[in-house]
Amino acid sequence: MADTFDISFIGSGNVAWHLAPALENSGHQVREVYSRNPENTELLLRRLYSAEPNETLDFTNSKSKVFFIAVSDDAIQQIACEIVLPDDAIIVHTSGSTPIETLNYTASEYTGVFYPLQTFSKMRKLDMGDVPILIEAEHKETLQILGTLARSISKNVYKVNSRDRLIAHISAVYACNFSNYLYGMAEKMLNNAGLDFDLLKPLIAETVNKSFEIGPYDAQTGPAVRGDLRTLDKHIEVLKDSDAAKVYTLLSQLILDEYGAE
Amino acid sequence: MADTFDISFIGSGNVAWHLAPALENSGHQVREVYSRNPENTELLLRRLYSAEPNETLDFTNSKSKVFFIAVSDDAIQQIACEIVLPDDAIIVHTSGSTPIETLNYTASEYTGVFYPLQTFSKMRKLDMGDVPILIEAEHKETLQILGTLARSISKNVYKVNSRDRLIAHISAVYACNFSNYLYGMAEKMLNNAGLDFDLLKPLIAETVNKSFEIGPYDAQTGPAVRGDLRTLDKHIEVLKDSDAAKVYTLLSQLILDEYGAE
Repeated sequence: MADTFDISFIGSGNVAWHLAPALENSGHQVREVYSRNPENTELLLRRLYSAEPNETLDFTNSKSKVFFIAVSDDAIQQIACEIVLPDDAIIVHTSGSTPIETLNYTASEYTGVFYPLQTFSKMRKLDMGDVPILIEAEHKETLQILGTLARSISKNVYKVNSRDRLIAHISAVYACNFSNYLYGMAEKMLNNAGLDFDLLKPLIAETVNKSFEIGPYDAQTGPAVRGDLRTLDKHIEVLKDSDAAKVYTLLSQLILDEYGAE
Repeated sequence: MADTFDISFIGSGNVAWHLAPALENSGHQVREVYSRNPENTELLLRRLYSAEPNETLDFTNSKSKVFFIAVSDDAIQQIACEIVLPDDAIIVHTSGSTPIETLNYTASEYTGVFYPLQTFSKMRKLDMGDVPILIEAEHKETLQILGTLARSISKNVYKVNSRDRLIAHISAVYACNFSNYLYGMAEKMLNNAGLDFDLLKPLIAETVNKSFEIGPYDAQTGPAVRGDLRTLDKHIEVLKDSDAAKVYTLLSQLILDEYGAE
């Protein structure tokens, strides 16, 4: 089996932005990029060696072996319905919450998933080397090829079915999207008091390091886990009826419930 | 004004555990430790050069200049009522959410606050050098002495009044206690799917780095900020009526509300 592959990208968003160059840097060749947004296509092409724009979803004449659908979740099915692939091509999507079966709308029998568990933004430099890549495929050789592609860019590759990948994606929403939103709430409070978000950096860094080292359950601190109801009341009084108060009340109650029995 | 001081600690919990040795390492001398828990007192004394246990709250004969009350918030007032200090001693507490006025229960006119904004656990090694220390005092020379003490262990020292310190503490609950609780929820989900919390480490590290670099507002990603209602529904369906679902629904709604108008 070859260990480098010709590949094509459908989509030029944040995932393609990081994934396509990473794959090229590992020796694979991106031949075509298709996206509905010509400007984004152009920007992505500039990051690649010799990829060409594909004006339509007709890839009949492409020499690529693997096609990556890296578009928003709700556009995957439509792409799957419309795409025309060369014989024996493998088609994968890069979504956490979309089952592999969505690709049954393509004509290909070689379908798979290649989900990098990370938060991607174009302005960020990112080392893909430790980004977990969750792969899935029914067909054995397809799974092997996805494994080869994944291991060529990351040392953390896992074979995970659609159900567990969905769980992993949901868990990532809590650990990334929601925790970042809490940082935003904290920043607003600080700014209203004339203080800077920077004040929390050592605390956040230590919180993360402690949670990694001893696990989040044992790392839990704060007034709720201590059962310090007087401080909880004091905080809720300051927060009044704000959105922040709703979050404070719910999360404190859950922490009290979980740790209170100890 | 002297730049090293004799000090005493009331309390032998997590804050004293880190603060007392850090102050000694900066040239100050801890003379006495008082705490209700003799075992904790003994353990803390072992971390100090020549501190002695003080059996009661009577410090009449102490040579210390500054007394640190490092106990749980709801015990501060009682300590303040009972403690007997030498003449001209400064008395401070280390609490985020307790107003300086609580120390008016002491006989000292030199009261202050010395609040290190960090999550403290005895099992963690901690570099105090970048831990923000929020100090407060009415009396000018007292404030100078607290500033000297604080700057001797940390490069991040801020003069903050009781109201703003309370806000800073509340913001820390979101950024530390609540975000850690979300990590715990994520870990449980992963474990139920046979996956490990380690899977989220690169994601959490990148989330924090991105939030620090471009600010949490611009760093926000995920289905809610994209307005991807189909994925939100899919996730809530998986979570069913769990506690995690309540958190998911509330935080997603707040993110939708905040970013939806763009």
